[in-house]
Amino acid sequence: MKSKISELKKKIKNLESLIDASLVFSSTLDIDALLDIILQKAEELMDAEASSVFRIDEEKNELYFITARGEKGKEVKEIRIPMGKGIVGWVAQHKKPLLVPDVTKDPRWFSGVDKKTKFVTRSILAVPLMVKGKIIGVAEVLNKRGNKKFTKEDLEVYSALANQMAIAIENASLYKELDELFLSSIRAIVEAIDAKDPYTKGHSARVVEYALLIGEGMKLDKEGLKDLELSAVLHDVGKIGIPDRILSKPGLLNSEEYNYMKRHPEFGAEIVGPIKKLKNLVPNILHHHEKYDGTGYPMGLKGKNIPMGARVIAIADSFDAMTSDRPYRPKMQTDEAIAEIKKNRRTQFDPEIVDIFIKALQKHFP
Amino acid sequence: MKSKISELKKKIKNLESLIDASLVFSSTLDIDALLDIILQKAEELMDAEASSVFRIDEEKNELYFITARGEKGKEVKEIRIPMGKGIVGWVAQHKKPLLVPDVTKDPRWFSGVDKKTKFVTRSILAVPLMVKGKIIGVAEVLNKRGNKKFTKEDLEVYSALANQMAIAIENASLYKELDELFLSSIRAIVEAIDAKDPYTKGHSARVVEYALLIGEGMKLDKEGLKDLELSAVLHDVGKIGIPDRILSKPGLLNSEEYNYMKRHPEFGAEIVGPIKKLKNLVPNILHHHEKYDGTGYPMGLKGKNIPMGARVIAIADSFDAMTSDRPYRPKMQTDEAIAEIKKNRRTQFDPEIVDIFIKALQKHFP
Repeated sequence: MKSKISELKKKIKNLESLIDASLVFSSTLDIDALLDIILQKAEELMDAEASSVFRIDEEKNELYFITARGEKGKEVKEIRIPMGKGIVGWVAQHKKPLLVPDVTKDPRWFSGVDKKTKFVTRSILAVPLMVKGKIIGVAEVLNKRGNKKFTKEDLEVYSALANQMAIAIENASLYKELDELFLSSIRAIVEAIDAKDPYTKGHSARVVEYALLIGEGMKLDKEGLKDLELSAVLHDVGKIGIPDRILSKPGLLNSEEYNYMKRHPEFGAEIVGPIKKLKNLVPNILHHHEKYDGTGYPMGLKGKNIPMGARVIAIADSFDAMTSDRPYRPKMQTDEAIAEIKKNRRTQFDPEIVDIFIKALQKHFP
Repeated sequence: MKSKISELKKKIKNLESLIDASLVFSSTLDIDALLDIILQKAEELMDAEASSVFRIDEEKNELYFITARGEKGKEVKEIRIPMGKGIVGWVAQHKKPLLVPDVTKDPRWFSGVDKKTKFVTRSILAVPLMVKGKIIGVAEVLNKRGNKKFTKEDLEVYSALANQMAIAIENASLYKELDELFLSSIRAIVEAIDAKDPYTKGHSARVVEYALLIGEGMKLDKEGLKDLELSAVLHDVGKIGIPDRILSKPGLLNSEEYNYMKRHPEFGAEIVGPIKKLKNLVPNILHHHEKYDGTGYPMGLKGKNIPMGARVIAIADSFDAMTSDRPYRPKMQTDEAIAEIKKNRRTQFDPEIVDIFIKALQKHFP
C-alpha cells in the first residue's frame, strides 16, 4: 500500500513537471530563446550532463544540431549526421525513442561527435520529435548525473517531454518563417524600386547591412536591431512617389527637381504611418536626411533630437551613396569615403555613431 | 489508505487531462480553430453545458466575447461587458477565479446576456486568462451537466486549464498580428504604386475585394482564400518596372508603349519569384492577363490551362478597370460593366467564374 502511494506521488510529481514545462515552452515564440529553455529544462528534469536538439534537413536526408548548450556549442553546429547513422540517426529513421545505458556496448554508437567536442558520452536517451505524425527532429540527453544510468522511467518522462518540445519548436519555427516572409517580401519590392534607377540598384540592401553593422557596434538588443533593419529597408520607400524623370535623371537635379526629391522621406512616412505596428519606425524614415548641425530636411532637427535610428541610417545611406557610381561622378574608394564621413563628423553626422561605424567597418572589411 | 489512493488516482487523471489539453491547444496557431478547440475542451473537461472566452478591449475598458459555441454564437458576439460589471467583469477586475454555484443568489450576476440569448444560466465558473502576469481575458463555463454544481476542485482544474488556454491564445494572437502586419505592409506599398497614377488609385485594393467575393462564391478554403488575396494584392506589383511616361500617360498608349506595358506581369513574377514561400502565387501574377480563348499574354494560355487564381483576378481586374475613369473614357456603370463581362464570357473570361462573380456581385451590391 505504502509503496503504491509513493509510486503514485512520484507520478504526480512527474506530471506536474511536464505541465510546468509545457507552460515554460509556450512562453516564447522566439526560436533561439526557446531552444535555450528546452535544453535547460531537459537537463534539469532528466538530471543530465548535456542535452541537444537536432532537426532534419529533408533535402539532404541529414540531421543537424540546431542547438547545444555550453562551450562546445560552436563546434557541434557544423556537425551533420546522415539519416540512419549513429544513435540519433537511428531514432530519426525508426521514429522510436532509444535508451542506451552504455554507449560503448551499442554497435550503433558513433563516436565522431565526441572526438570533435572532447565530451565523453557514457549513456544516451534519445527521442524523436513528432508533430502531427511527422518527425521534425530528434532530442537527446547525455550522461545521467552522479554516474547513474538512465532508466526506463526516464525514457517515459523524456518521451512525454519530447511531445511538448516538438510542438513548441514547430510553433516558434512557423512564427520565424512568417517573420522572414514578411521581411523578404518588403525587401523584394523595395529592391525593385531601387532597380528602377541602375545607379541605386541594391542600395537599400547595402544600407541595411551598414546600419546593422552600426547597430551591433552599439550593442542594440535583438528588438532594437530588428527595428533598425526594418527602418533601413524602408528608408527610401517614399521614392515610389518621386517621378522617374527626377528619380532617374542622368545628371544633377535642378533646384525645383531637388526640392521635389527632398520630399521622399515624407512620402515614406505617409506610406508606413498608417500601419499601426510600424508606427515606431516612422521617425527613422522621416528624419534620415536630417543633419547633426540642424541643416538637414525635412524639419531641420539637431543633434540628439534626431531619432537614433535616423542618425544611424544617415551615415549608412551616405556611405553607400559615396561608394556607388553616380551619372555625374564615379564612386569613391572605401578609404576616401571614410575620410569624407570623418570630415562631416559633428556637422552632418552624429560623431559617436561615426566612430562606431568606422571601427565596425575596419573590423569587417579590413 | 484506499481513499488516499483513489484521491491520488483522480489527481493523476486530472493532470493527464491537462497535459493532453496543452498539446491540443498548442497544435494550431490559427486563432479561430484554437478558440473552437478551447471551448470544446473546456466543456468536455468541466462537464459544462456551455463555455465562452472574453478578451479585454484596453482602450474602452470593456470585455467582449471572442467566441461562443453553438447557435447563440452570433448574438453574443455583439455583447460588450464593462470592466467590473457582472461575474466576468468582476473576474477581469480582480484577476481572481470565481465559483458561483447559484447565480440567482449572487448580487454580481448580470442577466443581460441570458435575456439576449435565451440561455438559462444556473452556475458559473469564471477564471482570468493571465500571460506573464498580465490579464488578457476571462474564460467561463456555464451549468455543470446533470443539474450538478461546480465544485472547488472544478475551480482548481479550470484554473490550471486557464493557464494553458491563455498562453495558446496569446501565441495564436501574436501569429495573427504578424500575419496582418505582413499583409498590411505589402498593401501599403502596393497602394502607393497604384497612387502614382491618379486613375489607378485604390485599384489593387478593389481587385482584392472582387477576387475574394469570387473566392467565397467558389467556396475556397481559408488557405485558398489567403493565397488568392495575396495574389490579388500583388497582381500589379510589376508596374514598379514600367516607366511613368507609360504608366501615367494621359491618353491611349502607342503600340511600342503598349508592348512595354504588357511586360508588367513578367516583372511582377520576377519580383515575387525569389521569395520561396510565395512561389505558388507566381502563376497567378504572371498569367492574370491571359484570355480564356488563348489570345491573352504573356503566354497565350487557354481555358483551364490558365491557373485558377489568374482566371479569377482577370475578371476582378477587368471589372475594376471598366468601373473606373480613364483619361480617355469615363467609367461604366455597374450594370454596363456586368453586361460587358457577360459578353466576354468564354472569349476573355472563364464562363463558370463569370457566373459566380455576377451572382456574388448581385448578392453583395444589389
